[in-house]
Amino acid sequence: MTDTSPVAATVTVADGSPRITAVDTYNIRFPTSRELDGSDAMNPDPDYSAAYVILRTDADDGLEGHGFTFTIGRGNDVQVAAIEALRAHIVGRSVTELCADPGWLSSDLTADSQLRWLGPEKGVMHMAIGAVVNAVWDLAAKRADKPLWRFLADAEPEWLADQIDYRYITDALTPAEALALLKRGRDGAAQRAVRLRGTGYPGYTTSPGWLGYSDEKLTRLARQAVADGFTQIKLKVGANLDDDIRRCRVARAAVGADIRIAIDANQRWNVDEAGAWIRALAEFDPYWIEEPTSPDDVLGHAAIREAVAPVKVATGEHVQNRIIFKQLLQAGAIDVLQIDATRVGGVNENLAILLLAAKYGVPVCPHAGGVGLCELVQHLSMFDYVALSGTTENRVIEYVDHLHDHFTDPVRMAHGHYVAPTAPGFSAQMRPESIDTYRYPDGTFWAADRAAQEEVTEA
Amino acid sequence: MTDTSPVAATVTVADGSPRITAVDTYNIRFPTSRELDGSDAMNPDPDYSAAYVILRTDADDGLEGHGFTFTIGRGNDVQVAAIEALRAHIVGRSVTELCADPGWLSSDLTADSQLRWLGPEKGVMHMAIGAVVNAVWDLAAKRADKPLWRFLADAEPEWLADQIDYRYITDALTPAEALALLKRGRDGAAQRAVRLRGTGYPGYTTSPGWLGYSDEKLTRLARQAVADGFTQIKLKVGANLDDDIRRCRVARAAVGADIRIAIDANQRWNVDEAGAWIRALAEFDPYWIEEPTSPDDVLGHAAIREAVAPVKVATGEHVQNRIIFKQLLQAGAIDVLQIDATRVGGVNENLAILLLAAKYGVPVCPHAGGVGLCELVQHLSMFDYVALSGTTENRVIEYVDHLHDHFTDPVRMAHGHYVAPTAPGFSAQMRPESIDTYRYPDGTFWAADRAAQEEVTEA
Repeated sequence: MTDTSPVAATVTVADGSPRITAVDTYNIRFPTSRELDGSDAMNPDPDYSAAYVILRTDADDGLEGHGFTFTIGRGNDVQVAAIEALRAHIVGRSVTELCADPGWLSSDLTADSQLRWLGPEKGVMHMAIGAVVNAVWDLAAKRADKPLWRFLADAEPEWLADQIDYRYITDALTPAEALALLKRGRDGAAQRAVRLRGTGYPGYTTSPGWLGYSDEKLTRLARQAVADGFTQIKLKVGANLDDDIRRCRVARAAVGADIRIAIDANQRWNVDEAGAWIRALAEFDPYWIEEPTSPDDVLGHAAIREAVAPVKVATGEHVQNRIIFKQLLQAGAIDVLQIDATRVGGVNENLAILLLAAKYGVPVCPHAGGVGLCELVQHLSMFDYVALSGTTENRVIEYVDHLHDHFTDPVRMAHGHYVAPTAPGFSAQMRPESIDTYRYPDGTFWAADRAAQEEVTEA
Repeated sequence: MTDTSPVAATVTVADGSPRITAVDTYNIRFPTSRELDGSDAMNPDPDYSAAYVILRTDADDGLEGHGFTFTIGRGNDVQVAAIEALRAHIVGRSVTELCADPGWLSSDLTADSQLRWLGPEKGVMHMAIGAVVNAVWDLAAKRADKPLWRFLADAEPEWLADQIDYRYITDALTPAEALALLKRGRDGAAQRAVRLRGTGYPGYTTSPGWLGYSDEKLTRLARQAVADGFTQIKLKVGANLDDDIRRCRVARAAVGADIRIAIDANQRWNVDEAGAWIRALAEFDPYWIEEPTSPDDVLGHAAIREAVAPVKVATGEHVQNRIIFKQLLQAGAIDVLQIDATRVGGVNENLAILLLAAKYGVPVCPHAGGVGLCELVQHLSMFDYVALSGTTENRVIEYVDHLHDHFTDPVRMAHGHYVAPTAPGFSAQMRPESIDTYRYPDGTFWAADRAAQEEVTEA
């Protein structure tokens, strides 16, 4: 790794320099299943959750690194256990060195041969690495007194290129190509940063489209979305074709011809089922079909893309790592690449994925929603716009109006756009009172809930 | 699911029928890193481990279902936590119904939408499902008083075809095709079962080839392997080309021209590195190159296969599920398919993979070694031979002479062949004293080890 880090110049490493003193974990669960928020064809009753981690230091600046993996309820404790398995790798490390080179930790965690066996680079263990790596980036950006998007956009291309693990992707992206893309991204970056601060980054909303909502609620929320300035909405599909036809008709009637309607099957179909289903919805002019089948199926997505054109194919929220994304791009299997902030190994791997997308000229439209995913992923798209792709054309970040109040630096929307964050860090920090309330099973909400259920049972 | 189960006919379901009463888990760790057994280019110091599960029932037959996930040390506790997250799905279920239709549980666990988010169908959560599903098959075979391979080989094709989750694979294998393959496999099955009992199933050995061994030890063990009747050995490669050239030369000199030498890079290379490395070893006539790169890289394996022909390409021990295997076959990316008994979702998913391999005509040569992997996977290959592929041509099961003594029904080798098990079940049951000794961190071995280390520290 080179010595061009944005923080290395400002902090001196010495004996007695600050260290990571604790890796504290929290099992946070919100009772979202009670309102059918987030219901789709594969996930009928999610309890939006976070396996949450705080890195504490003995620096006298009072700063902490916050990170998390988003899950939807059961198993969040397994995810927490996986984060705890990384603790020994992190406690005692130099804060200065970690923040000067998060890629060092990222590679080190990914390369732990014993933990690697549990993936490799996928599922619970890989998401745990992502949570910890993201927490380091949060801390690094806070120490640099910048929001993460600006911390990244201001970094030297050489340093950013060195933050990437090229293992298994050099056949698609070499370090030299990455550096060239990052250098190209610097042209005009200052002007784009100004524009971003002025108008924000375009979003689209999934709030109207959950499967569990009535047609009346769908109509009302779809109209509200247009009134709020969104130019794209998304509907969940895939459980029942007749219902999908009716709901697409209702949505199209509500928003008119000029608003894009994306549809999302949440992996519901086999490869050979997707084509006919999409053709049956074609009259409603769907903009993209998202997650038509398993996120693992590169060849399947390529076949589906051919079958449903001109409807675009989008996937990524469940794509496990840069290696599958690489193949989706190599195979021409997707029109839209949907990164997720907490599915892969953190900012470093998402940088690799953004670079792969830039190399192949495929627009990145991040997955968000859940718990804190909007807060995190906006930084990656804003960096992408300012200092990599250089454009927001055909690029939108998903927006869902859930659970933002639990964060100290919640996303702000204006006219359907994400407003560029100004607070230092990755916007990952949850309010302490939210953690105390929704910690599972001992937080105040869950304790009261249990007591109320016991009362009902006794009565 | 149809009613042609091999056990459904013999047991009557009624009120008061036996139930699963407990799902007990154990974190078992063996100190294998101290001898460099199992050392390879990616895994320099594995502590072979098992996240172990016992299903207990209130039946009066005293039978238990045993299953496990193999890991290599750190993180085994995370794997145990994942198995425990499944407990609520299993306790209280009817033993009779479970054993009559393990596919019911398999689908049910895979479809838990909240747990599915942690994969889907990959990594820690999926391997946990595999452990539990395998334990049910162990119990089912014990209740039928048959070794698992015979339990499967005796089952009706219709019932077996119904044990498979076809989601995401119908573009490569339809239920009708699976049934036809299973029916074809019945032709001559009885004669093949007789032959199997007589001569066993061919194995090959990796024991000589670990990276940590000296040339002298490699020579000695390679000669021993030939003397023991093996016709194939395997060497670990990929860390250092000069070392690999030397070790391949030593091995070829030790075994002569007629013994197959497979080489195994354990995912060490990028796609564009593999070709040159293999060409540099070509003079030693390697039979297959195993895991040349990431197990996620379908297109990469296809490119490597083209680059290294006529050396065969093998992979599978880290392939996460049937969906990646499907694509490896569709893309013509592998010559040899290496199933693993505890990486995927258990027997049911391995049946799907065996059927996919049969459909595409690719030989299955299982990965084994570790803890209990030989014990388990032999049953799947023996079923494959007797009642599906109908041949052992170019098919060998990996054999490593480690840790078998800890099992109540250890594998037996004769003249380089696996002897067909006769004890009822899946050969998955560990000796109680081994569990007590190697339970981590409280087993007697680890407690004594800690005490000895403290003594050294104090002295």
